[in-house]
Amino acid sequence: MTLTTTLDTPLLADPAQVAADPGRYRVLTGDRPTGPLHLGHYFGTLLNRVRLQRQGVETFLVVADYQVITDRLSPGEIADNVREVVLDNLAAGIDPELTTVFAHSAVPALNQLMLPFLSLTTVAELQRNPTVKDEAAASGLAAISGLLLTYPVHQAADILFCHGSLVPVGDDQLPHVEQTRLIARRFNERYAGGRPVFREPQALLSPSPRLLGIDGRKMSKSRGNAIALKASADETARLIRRSVTDSERAVTYEPDRRPGVSSLVEIAALCLDLAPAVVAERVGPGGSAALKALVTEAVNEELRPVRARRAELAAEPGLVGRLLADGAERASALASSTLADVQEVLGMTAY
Amino acid sequence: MTLTTTLDTPLLADPAQVAADPGRYRVLTGDRPTGPLHLGHYFGTLLNRVRLQRQGVETFLVVADYQVITDRLSPGEIADNVREVVLDNLAAGIDPELTTVFAHSAVPALNQLMLPFLSLTTVAELQRNPTVKDEAAASGLAAISGLLLTYPVHQAADILFCHGSLVPVGDDQLPHVEQTRLIARRFNERYAGGRPVFREPQALLSPSPRLLGIDGRKMSKSRGNAIALKASADETARLIRRSVTDSERAVTYEPDRRPGVSSLVEIAALCLDLAPAVVAERVGPGGSAALKALVTEAVNEELRPVRARRAELAAEPGLVGRLLADGAERASALASSTLADVQEVLGMTAY
Repeated sequence: MTLTTTLDTPLLADPAQVAADPGRYRVLTGDRPTGPLHLGHYFGTLLNRVRLQRQGVETFLVVADYQVITDRLSPGEIADNVREVVLDNLAAGIDPELTTVFAHSAVPALNQLMLPFLSLTTVAELQRNPTVKDEAAASGLAAISGLLLTYPVHQAADILFCHGSLVPVGDDQLPHVEQTRLIARRFNERYAGGRPVFREPQALLSPSPRLLGIDGRKMSKSRGNAIALKASADETARLIRRSVTDSERAVTYEPDRRPGVSSLVEIAALCLDLAPAVVAERVGPGGSAALKALVTEAVNEELRPVRARRAELAAEPGLVGRLLADGAERASALASSTLADVQEVLGMTAY
Repeated sequence: MTLTTTLDTPLLADPAQVAADPGRYRVLTGDRPTGPLHLGHYFGTLLNRVRLQRQGVETFLVVADYQVITDRLSPGEIADNVREVVLDNLAAGIDPELTTVFAHSAVPALNQLMLPFLSLTTVAELQRNPTVKDEAAASGLAAISGLLLTYPVHQAADILFCHGSLVPVGDDQLPHVEQTRLIARRFNERYAGGRPVFREPQALLSPSPRLLGIDGRKMSKSRGNAIALKASADETARLIRRSVTDSERAVTYEPDRRPGVSSLVEIAALCLDLAPAVVAERVGPGGSAALKALVTEAVNEELRPVRARRAELAAEPGLVGRLLADGAERASALASSTLADVQEVLGMTAY
């Protein structure tokens, strides 16, 4: 199929181009509300979002509440987790005047886009998606649910309902952006006779590498190796003090050979805006104890203003609810307009 | 998993029980608007629907417009086909005062039920579904779309949004009713702590066998072997006259050995409410010509009032649009209420 209509943009956006002309872009980003966000989210995603927002890029932030049940048998405390995730974003600097924050469940027209977009996705593509495969394996469930298999299509609906052009992601999310590009292209070609109803979004890779937990393994609340943004300074100190390093005296930065020590070094490096090797050299003979003290102070210092803002926001009754209601209204207006365009293209009007 | 909560109803409903207590049931039925309905739909489905409606069973009839694109690359003339399908139903006796008629695309809350229900369906179940497999093969497409794979889940949303308890089907649709029963059961067990939020629907098998086309092959508009309800008496006569039978002189009823002749016999038998063997014996030595004359007269006689009503309805400007708008309003109110219950069970409220 020859593509004559859609802009032939590369998958990866150039951050310099974005900074030079932020008004040309619209960002779609979001979180799955499975628990409070932690330091990995902060450096990997939140700061990136806030920087884009400050550059003047219009942003939509979805709290993917339906996606909580993709890979688990019980929804858990969704309402509490939605609240935590929104507060974490606000505390990190997301401004609801500039960024539209909404939950999936409150925007029916967005969810309905799943149907036409599922028709533009092959089962083979979904089954080949390496991130879906990894997540299926990590879920520990014997059988993959239909929701897990199709969630990249739901993500395409997130991106395309608002005509998002830029999706800040880690590299594990690149297959989903590629799937969205395919859906946009196929919609234009198959259904719209080549008219560019949707543009192909670009991925903006996170500038930070994926941060590991304080034990050097993947950071996750369930492993107890993640520092939550909402944790107190004392809780943070305790968690870091308990972390297992190794028996070597001097601190070095060798991620492959010494994952625990090196992960602590990386955390300090990100907080202090230094290269990990520099941090390791500074601590050097001070050993694990000195490293832990340094990390504790650096993390608590970095998060002090975030935590203070978070406590203030959390104390305002009804704040999150009002903000999500506003966001849902804005997102719904846009989603309804996009859905109306889609239905018109498909000839599903004027019955 | 022990089921303590849902009524342990068998998959197949007993027609006598339904007739004895029609107020206990709610029917969900529907059509995919890929073209005007034909004699196969009429005897296989429409008459059954109308009978249930007349017995006093509350009925919901979905025009599955999104499902048109499950297995084809272009939506075709959806709006025209929606109109035809609604007119065919009304002409056959569906009364919009008694039956809620609506299109998928107009009921967002119903479509949104796809998301929680996909979480209760395994990919393996969808891939094992024999009807999905058959339809995938029949589509002639190289790749199965996500929409085709997941359409039984969309059908579950159709049935469960209105708490339908009875689904009139041919036996090819039984796997979908079973999938719906699984979804209902799992929702109650996994998410609702055993509370019977959904009941398990039952299938009501069509009393008529599947009618074949006038050539003895599967009846389908694209094969030119289907008599459309809206065809004129002359068009019907012409189509039957052109049908290929075989070179044997006498008419007999032997479906395996003489599919063409036997299919014509069956059509006449249904219209005349006689056993096929009786029809074959009556025509006997008259041969193909006599059989064709009999079928033509029987079909035109059977459809005369249907066609007259259809012409009247088709002449009323805006009728179908108004009726679908009314139906969508009623269906949306119900779907929103069901979705609110689902979201409450999942804890997706009070953000």
